[in-house]
Amino acid sequence: MKKPAGASAASLVDGVRAGDARAIARAISALEDHEPGAVELVRELFPHTGKAFLVGLTGAPGTGKSSLANRLAAHYRAQGKRVGVIAVDPTSPFTGGALLGDRIRMQQHATDDGIYIRSMATRGVLGGLARATGDATLVLDAAGKDIILIETVGVGQDEVDIVRLADVTVLLLVAGLGDDVQSFKAGVMEIADVFVINKADRGDTERLEQELKVVLGLSRRADQWEPPVVKTVATEGAGVPELAAAVDAYRAHIEGAGLREQKRSERWQERLLDLIRERALERVLKASVGKDKLAACARQVARGERDPYSVVEELLRVAGVNG
Amino acid sequence: MKKPAGASAASLVDGVRAGDARAIARAISALEDHEPGAVELVRELFPHTGKAFLVGLTGAPGTGKSSLANRLAAHYRAQGKRVGVIAVDPTSPFTGGALLGDRIRMQQHATDDGIYIRSMATRGVLGGLARATGDATLVLDAAGKDIILIETVGVGQDEVDIVRLADVTVLLLVAGLGDDVQSFKAGVMEIADVFVINKADRGDTERLEQELKVVLGLSRRADQWEPPVVKTVATEGAGVPELAAAVDAYRAHIEGAGLREQKRSERWQERLLDLIRERALERVLKASVGKDKLAACARQVARGERDPYSVVEELLRVAGVNG
Repeated sequence: MKKPAGASAASLVDGVRAGDARAIARAISALEDHEPGAVELVRELFPHTGKAFLVGLTGAPGTGKSSLANRLAAHYRAQGKRVGVIAVDPTSPFTGGALLGDRIRMQQHATDDGIYIRSMATRGVLGGLARATGDATLVLDAAGKDIILIETVGVGQDEVDIVRLADVTVLLLVAGLGDDVQSFKAGVMEIADVFVINKADRGDTERLEQELKVVLGLSRRADQWEPPVVKTVATEGAGVPELAAAVDAYRAHIEGAGLREQKRSERWQERLLDLIRERALERVLKASVGKDKLAACARQVARGERDPYSVVEELLRVAGVNG
Repeated sequence: MKKPAGASAASLVDGVRAGDARAIARAISALEDHEPGAVELVRELFPHTGKAFLVGLTGAPGTGKSSLANRLAAHYRAQGKRVGVIAVDPTSPFTGGALLGDRIRMQQHATDDGIYIRSMATRGVLGGLARATGDATLVLDAAGKDIILIETVGVGQDEVDIVRLADVTVLLLVAGLGDDVQSFKAGVMEIADVFVINKADRGDTERLEQELKVVLGLSRRADQWEPPVVKTVATEGAGVPELAAAVDAYRAHIEGAGLREQKRSERWQERLLDLIRERALERVLKASVGKDKLAACARQVARGERDPYSVVEELLRVAGVNG
């Protein structure tokens, strides 16, 4: 609080709260990069959060998530709602696809102050992407966004962790993509609240819808919600109002049943675990290791001189993290 | 060492070293479930590891990883090599697909003692799957397997972390699957050492091969290796000897350049970080929190009463993990 960063942090918080796009971008980057003052920034933004509704959109590559997110954002904007979009892309620096996609999409909404779009690309840090995405939702929430769309490829565990941040999860499927079975298996089936069959002008849509309803009919949810199936053609905007209505219905269901706080508590529990992991690692590295020591330990293990668990026990002991 | 588990741990180590399938299965499960004595087990197995060559096979859903892994395993078996296969499946308990696939595949090799196949399914624990897979490779290595195939869906960060365990990474692509571009973007492009175009009897194979070679021509690797492109039809076994030859060539390259120890050191450094994270979390939860306290903290955050970073700082302080 006494450091010079205090003053600029305060003005950053003011800028975010006023919905200033540059302040929002600056705050998300500061949290993403663990800049000094990041903890203080979250602490100051946090009291102004909790109002935004988080909509997660996920699906296999090629299901049309970006198109649908754009259409849904435009739908909410037409209702006068302020919208944030976080597009999480497991693209590597090798292709730079996230930045390109970001630029293209920003142009579509360039003249609209009520929408803010941010791409997040994987940094190769385990758990880092889910944490960074969670922090970005806090910033957008504090900036007064009514709806935050989180769009991510839904195949791996990392993406499932990201989707878990949302209040409602929408899973996109496409008929005849060759991977509908894989989508069923992707670990997001049981956390999807609304199903979308996109590109519904394709031939096999009816069959996929039937199969999906059979699978859904086999499961019972603890919250008594029966996930609806909505058909869309995102490139033409068809079915988008129906999707928004399905999302609203789910929101009314969980709020009516008093489940929203419970679901948020469950999500925060997971996020607290992630934060503890990352913070504890930072502390151990600072206290006992440093990059050089760690590299030396890794070499010993690679040569077979020491086993990995003994090394880790010693590092934790030196850092004062005792069993 | 004084506890009764000591004796059974010793016989378990003997069983694993003798290549006994039941002992191997028992040891992998013990490590997977963090059973008491797991650390001791790794400590005893570790001196007998370091000989196996780890081959990672990854690719989007529908590229034919399982078929190719089966064919490659059979190829190595025909050369008299002992083979372990770890099939990492992000399938949820919702479908039980991993177990079904496991049974089907075990039948194919049921009469062969020289091969051991193990499926690992996601447990919803962040970072847990990569750690469990790493531990399983140690067991199979100590059991005298010459080649360990690690097969996983390659889209998310979690899968990339799993692939990083391997000595050589093989990336499968298929023409016309509708997601070839996504496969290029999946963050595994730059860690793939050998590219396979599977289902090479499909029409668009030539075009995909050309595109791939253009993309590969744009990058230079620090280890001077130029990743080859091998065409296979896994269902018929076509191209499998050529794939094995490409893997051998890469192995000869890194061993000839003295890079194997360096690469293993880099991998161990990542795994040590993961282990520190998980162990430190366990310690913090044991020392300061417990599930009830954590749930209460999560409720406070969900209600907006406290910010998440302050909560985590306090929990770490109580656990004696200081900044």
